[in-house]
Amino acid sequence: MQGIEEAVAENVQIRDRRQDVKVGIVGYGTVGKATAEILASHAVEIRQRTGGVAVTVTRICRKTPRDPETAINSIRVGSDWREVVGAPEVDIVVEAVGGTETAFDVVRESLRNGKAVVTANKALIARYGEELFALAREKNLPIGIEASVAGGVPVIRAISEALAGDKIKAIYGILNGTCNYILTEMEQRGIEFSQALAAAQAAGYAESDPSLDIDGLDARDKIAILARIAFGHPINTEEIPVTGIRNITATDFHYAHRLNSTIRLVASAERTNGGIHIAVQPWLEPRDSMLSKVDGANNAIFIAGEKVGTQMLYGRGAGGGATGTAVLSDVIEIAGQISRGQIRPSALAGFDHSEALRLSPWTQPLSWFLRLTVNDRPGILARTAEAIAREGINIDSVIQEPHMAKDGLSFVITVEPTSEPRVQRAIETINRFEFMKAPVLLLPMISSMEEHI
Amino acid sequence: MQGIEEAVAENVQIRDRRQDVKVGIVGYGTVGKATAEILASHAVEIRQRTGGVAVTVTRICRKTPRDPETAINSIRVGSDWREVVGAPEVDIVVEAVGGTETAFDVVRESLRNGKAVVTANKALIARYGEELFALAREKNLPIGIEASVAGGVPVIRAISEALAGDKIKAIYGILNGTCNYILTEMEQRGIEFSQALAAAQAAGYAESDPSLDIDGLDARDKIAILARIAFGHPINTEEIPVTGIRNITATDFHYAHRLNSTIRLVASAERTNGGIHIAVQPWLEPRDSMLSKVDGANNAIFIAGEKVGTQMLYGRGAGGGATGTAVLSDVIEIAGQISRGQIRPSALAGFDHSEALRLSPWTQPLSWFLRLTVNDRPGILARTAEAIAREGINIDSVIQEPHMAKDGLSFVITVEPTSEPRVQRAIETINRFEFMKAPVLLLPMISSMEEHI
Repeated sequence: MQGIEEAVAENVQIRDRRQDVKVGIVGYGTVGKATAEILASHAVEIRQRTGGVAVTVTRICRKTPRDPETAINSIRVGSDWREVVGAPEVDIVVEAVGGTETAFDVVRESLRNGKAVVTANKALIARYGEELFALAREKNLPIGIEASVAGGVPVIRAISEALAGDKIKAIYGILNGTCNYILTEMEQRGIEFSQALAAAQAAGYAESDPSLDIDGLDARDKIAILARIAFGHPINTEEIPVTGIRNITATDFHYAHRLNSTIRLVASAERTNGGIHIAVQPWLEPRDSMLSKVDGANNAIFIAGEKVGTQMLYGRGAGGGATGTAVLSDVIEIAGQISRGQIRPSALAGFDHSEALRLSPWTQPLSWFLRLTVNDRPGILARTAEAIAREGINIDSVIQEPHMAKDGLSFVITVEPTSEPRVQRAIETINRFEFMKAPVLLLPMISSMEEHI
Repeated sequence: MQGIEEAVAENVQIRDRRQDVKVGIVGYGTVGKATAEILASHAVEIRQRTGGVAVTVTRICRKTPRDPETAINSIRVGSDWREVVGAPEVDIVVEAVGGTETAFDVVRESLRNGKAVVTANKALIARYGEELFALAREKNLPIGIEASVAGGVPVIRAISEALAGDKIKAIYGILNGTCNYILTEMEQRGIEFSQALAAAQAAGYAESDPSLDIDGLDARDKIAILARIAFGHPINTEEIPVTGIRNITATDFHYAHRLNSTIRLVASAERTNGGIHIAVQPWLEPRDSMLSKVDGANNAIFIAGEKVGTQMLYGRGAGGGATGTAVLSDVIEIAGQISRGQIRPSALAGFDHSEALRLSPWTQPLSWFLRLTVNDRPGILARTAEAIAREGINIDSVIQEPHMAKDGLSFVITVEPTSEPRVQRAIETINRFEFMKAPVLLLPMISSMEEHI
């Protein structure tokens, strides 16, 4: 008891109580601007919620500081972030720069100067989270990261809440709106990946360089953050296996429909016998599952707890309004702490920082969808089937439609529940066959993680 | 400013900081027992989350106090609730009695004795919430009600959070797991209501007297609580129109399937031009909507905000584990306040208590499903169609299958978007026809509220 009380006394920073909290915003793109606007337009609601605290923006750092649009009220607008993080009156710095370079400096210097930080930057947290949270703990300052995963969907609070009285078994879901938009377009319009990507770019859902999204790296950062909170240990994000959606074709959707299914990019983390399995990869999803109903640029996260059962949270994963609201929820929480004269470091800062989580392969048996694209000739099916049989795997179905793809013949084999290492061995053999035009596309067939944990 | 600061100073109760918080539990059924068990089994996690506070149960009131099962540790177990709410060491009383009589006394006396309260009792809050929250405000004490709606789904926190930076347009969803279980059984097994109810009772999802659930009264209490928080004014729960599921037949599901739809009991509250529309009634839901994917005893709540877009939260709405976890989330929040020496009244206590919300009818045009059960004779369709045409309503489809129901002929008419008052006028005429065996079953055809707001 004594030990814990001392630890708490150490961890809580006692300051003067204040009813007036000042915010500095660094970066004035979609998120920074939305945050400033909501803070201005919802001043009354924010006071109500914080019990009377006035939260005001006093500084903004943006690239083009002279834009008259931002010269509102008495906010000082400049282009040097050091002026914001060094401003004596600023209590909370909202880092909305993006990227991991300047953003890192902004957060580190803010903490060093005794400012609380709120950020929507998942890449920064996935990469430098341990370092920044260690500094935050040292300084007894909070870093709010609710907006870093799934925009306006309060997934980080939901996980923290579940953790307080339960043990989390698995977290999985759709964490990248760009990929989901592309896959939904392909599903609904029967178009190829490149066309759907162009549509996503035209609609503002994909960057001109879309690789962080479509290669699954953005989703990987997000699941790393969620798994870090849920399972309580640092994670080496680069160790998480990731497969993006570049190789998904219109033909794959055609075959998926034949199987009464669709395709979604899913990020997942769950307890296994050997540790924690974390991955980002496309799943073949039954069309009547809840996951397959998540369409367009939406996000959805399933949290499976031992006691509370499975929860799902769904909503807009990006956009100024959604992300700005999430930033604000952290700003309000920290403003409340400041007003009570007690700033507490984030829950994350209290975790074990020493030992990185041991990642484990997926060992439980799953059904799999294998799509092969081949140069047509006699004997292909026989040799493929033999390679599969040699690993002791049972074929569940073979579907071949005449001349679907423009470049080569595509057909699909689905197999009965098999562990991933075993199906991977069969695929290694198949990929070496001279008739293969491209590596096998392998998708797990999963309707919900709870079936497997 | 000065005014608000004074108000805040008044509203926050300053006490000594403490690292040791005591809980008394009144009522030891599913919820009370689960709460006690989680508090015992998750002591370490709770200390972590509260920053080192030890939260322990010191008193339990139950009907049969001598059951050795509860004589654990140093908990005092008795059968008089006054001993719990009067115990000097108890900081937080968990009211888990149920009902609105003793439960009311328990909460009122707890507040009068300076104890914070946590309850899962929606009937109590829907009926006596204003009185109890006024008392809580007077005493500067919190009442935690997260568990009162949707069990383990943190919907009350999600609404509060959305409110801080956004304006809520609508809340709707499946709030009664019993009805959803019955409707799912009818849908999947093609059985009649009475059989599905018996199945729900056998599975423990329905009480022996199921009327509070199947007549929609439980869902009405819950939507009243959510609307009260979302829209900020007291609500006269009895004014909310409610239609239960007693009259839904296997034939209705058959016709729903013909329309590629299913039937769900939905509670909804949304801003309209004339005020707030609140209702509980069965909806005809397209089978590919997210709402229709909510099956079994699950709950799902959609929250549509102006900025954040539409969020959905899904999970177990009842059961000891889910509800106990929700009770615990409030206990932990209040324990944190006690440890900081600052108890704040609930957000709800700060709302305007004076003026009850003005309920408005549903004025936006909707498509409707009308099921008629008649004694077959010539001219029925002609006279029905004429009654509909007289109100200027366009018929969209007529579906009649031979001899579906045992008692009388049933057929379905769907109509193009029409306001509810107008379709109700047509139905009043039809219900007077001498060939009608039962009043028309009228279901709105809605895939998502956002289409209409």
